[in-house]
Amino acid sequence: MLLFSLTISSQAQNEDSIVIRKIFDEALQNGKAYDHLKVLCKNIGHRLSGSPQAAEAVKWAEKAMADFGADTVFKKDVMVPHWDRGAKEKAEIFPSKSRNIIPLNVLALGGSVGTDKGPLLTQVIEVKSLASLDSIPAKDIKGKIVFLNEHMDAKYVNTFEAYDHAFMIRWACARKTAPLGAVAVIIRSVNPSLDDFPHTGVMSYADTIKKIPACAISTNDADKLSALLKKDPLLKIKLEMHCRMLPDAASHNVVGQLNGTALKDKYLVVGGHLDSWDTGEGAHDDGAGVVQSMEVLNLLKKAGVVPKHNIRAVAFMNEENGNRGGIEYAELAQKNNEKHIAAIESDAGGFTPRGFFIKGDSLQRNKILAWKPLFAPYFIHSFELEGGGVDIGPLRKKQNTFLMGLLPDTQRYFDIHHSPNDVFENINRRELELGAATMAAMIYLIDKYGLE
Amino acid sequence: MLLFSLTISSQAQNEDSIVIRKIFDEALQNGKAYDHLKVLCKNIGHRLSGSPQAAEAVKWAEKAMADFGADTVFKKDVMVPHWDRGAKEKAEIFPSKSRNIIPLNVLALGGSVGTDKGPLLTQVIEVKSLASLDSIPAKDIKGKIVFLNEHMDAKYVNTFEAYDHAFMIRWACARKTAPLGAVAVIIRSVNPSLDDFPHTGVMSYADTIKKIPACAISTNDADKLSALLKKDPLLKIKLEMHCRMLPDAASHNVVGQLNGTALKDKYLVVGGHLDSWDTGEGAHDDGAGVVQSMEVLNLLKKAGVVPKHNIRAVAFMNEENGNRGGIEYAELAQKNNEKHIAAIESDAGGFTPRGFFIKGDSLQRNKILAWKPLFAPYFIHSFELEGGGVDIGPLRKKQNTFLMGLLPDTQRYFDIHHSPNDVFENINRRELELGAATMAAMIYLIDKYGLE
Repeated sequence: MLLFSLTISSQAQNEDSIVIRKIFDEALQNGKAYDHLKVLCKNIGHRLSGSPQAAEAVKWAEKAMADFGADTVFKKDVMVPHWDRGAKEKAEIFPSKSRNIIPLNVLALGGSVGTDKGPLLTQVIEVKSLASLDSIPAKDIKGKIVFLNEHMDAKYVNTFEAYDHAFMIRWACARKTAPLGAVAVIIRSVNPSLDDFPHTGVMSYADTIKKIPACAISTNDADKLSALLKKDPLLKIKLEMHCRMLPDAASHNVVGQLNGTALKDKYLVVGGHLDSWDTGEGAHDDGAGVVQSMEVLNLLKKAGVVPKHNIRAVAFMNEENGNRGGIEYAELAQKNNEKHIAAIESDAGGFTPRGFFIKGDSLQRNKILAWKPLFAPYFIHSFELEGGGVDIGPLRKKQNTFLMGLLPDTQRYFDIHHSPNDVFENINRRELELGAATMAAMIYLIDKYGLE
Repeated sequence: MLLFSLTISSQAQNEDSIVIRKIFDEALQNGKAYDHLKVLCKNIGHRLSGSPQAAEAVKWAEKAMADFGADTVFKKDVMVPHWDRGAKEKAEIFPSKSRNIIPLNVLALGGSVGTDKGPLLTQVIEVKSLASLDSIPAKDIKGKIVFLNEHMDAKYVNTFEAYDHAFMIRWACARKTAPLGAVAVIIRSVNPSLDDFPHTGVMSYADTIKKIPACAISTNDADKLSALLKKDPLLKIKLEMHCRMLPDAASHNVVGQLNGTALKDKYLVVGGHLDSWDTGEGAHDDGAGVVQSMEVLNLLKKAGVVPKHNIRAVAFMNEENGNRGGIEYAELAQKNNEKHIAAIESDAGGFTPRGFFIKGDSLQRNKILAWKPLFAPYFIHSFELEGGGVDIGPLRKKQNTFLMGLLPDTQRYFDIHHSPNDVFENINRRELELGAATMAAMIYLIDKYGLE
């Protein structure tokens, strides 16, 4: 059987298990990811591409990687989209038969236009799902605000599966409702729980379709608004948004490298994204991935690993609304003839690591699966899901790089995702450091054995 | 190979996977454990054995189990130890060379005596570990408060392994220091993180050894006190504790049962404990286990399972400081000739389920292991650890019952355990409901296939 022929010898397994134990011991006892993340979240805070905070974060990452003792630290220019929220959005519910105006906490979706001709004040039509839009007569929508109250599907144990569908609710809300005559769209936040935080995230327009303002309300507010509309279908909402797209801005990916000793033209990458949405502190999304990636270099050094390949921690810029950093990184790698063997991304939250998403050929998959026993002592079991990551995706397109995504526990992620709730206080030190150790152990094995 | 011979047929696996999918779908979409736990935590709160709240909790559990549609609900008398904290403890640090008294937030350990002859005011000796006590001359300890500043070992990925050792720090702190002349003992809380919550828990005396007051301080306060003692070894602490042991009190286990249709003299149990420490709300420890156990009955009914065995959800009383409920339950089962085939306990927190602890013979283990593929879609992978649970332990002694303990993710548990931090707000709905589904799926399989 193929699997057995790929199984590494028991002596090697033993050596490997000792190195991996060192990596995890160091992470749990002295890991530095948590302390780094605190600085990023509390001293800089959220950092949308093009913002002054994003520029601060680039400086911070450069310094932090150098402090770690990376052999080489450099940054690479990336031009990024620059969307700006402007003054805080404002929304109010005007009942049709009373003067008791009810404030509504809205958060513009990333990329939305504002209410540029002044506040909107108009009726609202609730729509239960994107799919059901087709069955609603355009006359019922025309001139109104569409309230898209589609729930994230709770039944998926892996919440990222639910997000695969729910993403479209947010991404397509304007381009699906504008052609029907909607003047704005308010979505139920993409979040499986009932809470009071609106969640933002990227949405899109099409060149041929009118651009209408798009924003989110919390799941609790969505339930309340739905109940209000049942009692008072003629209520109006006043909506004021000041967001706008500015010209592209100059920014950077930041790279820290441990120089390879044997395979000096080959590269392994571990990365996360430095930018975040402009709410909360970008703690889980994706400060966690950035500090874990930096920590991989630290843990390998502390465990005495002398890498064959060049090993890079990359803090990518602009994952959230453009992926310019990921695209630029892959193009430059190709241009410079840097052969990227494998890339691991951490961008699914700083929760307890459970395994990896994998994108590669069957031989590579089987090689990884043969290492499963080395991860079992750390309760890392899941190596079956297909996937990589947004930032490292372009490397596969350019160089057929083997991709992995760190898979943490997913139950809490979308409660926090793109919301004011994504703050450092919601990070657990042990969970975060374990994620760094898990990636470091995988990088150690790929560096030692390759993937061919 | 034995494993293959025990593997159930693929058709049966398919039927089973459909039932298990129903159980998980119901739990994630309509699970009631979370709503029940909210009532227990917010309307009743913490509920130490013998307290009025414990009596309230018994009433609540009876009613909640009946509301679930259990075929039979009953309670069984248990006499329980009744320890009472009395008025809030008070401690202050008196520097030797200044009048700047520093308050210290202490929490008496469960079972401790008070400072019955009035507040203590005396010097303090810091001891780094229980083990190092032997090397300290008794004259250095005599008349002083011992500050036992032993850290919970961070390097165990499974924090319950660290607790196996750390438990002794708390349990034996008085009986190890009193013979050396200590007048009281303050321990560093058994908690791997740095925070501001003192953690209580059971401690013990020996009849032949003087009973001295014992309390805990938070890990942050332990670091502060240690630093203060380095600068000022002659500082004193004033300690005032009003706790005391009262006569045993009458209480109850609460049992809800789905009646068996084929094996009417045989029983399967799923349980947690209704009592909690008298701080926080007993949310993870072990309100979670109680509501999950009740929810198992609900999920089985909703999935259309017609049980062969009698299936009981048991809310045990007095796990924390006596295990009287567990002992009484097993004795009664033996007396009534109720044959208990298997028991599953949930008492390790309401976090994402990862697997089960198991205590049984190798044939039973292998049978369980053959079911692993049925749990993999739900990210339940860990079936290797030895263990059962405190409440169900006596069933094994009496009847050689097969035991399992639900194993949730362990990273956050000891941050919360026995502290004011164990509140409903630290429960995640999906994680809690998934734990109930995991136990329901296991009970379904054991009920269908038996363990012989």
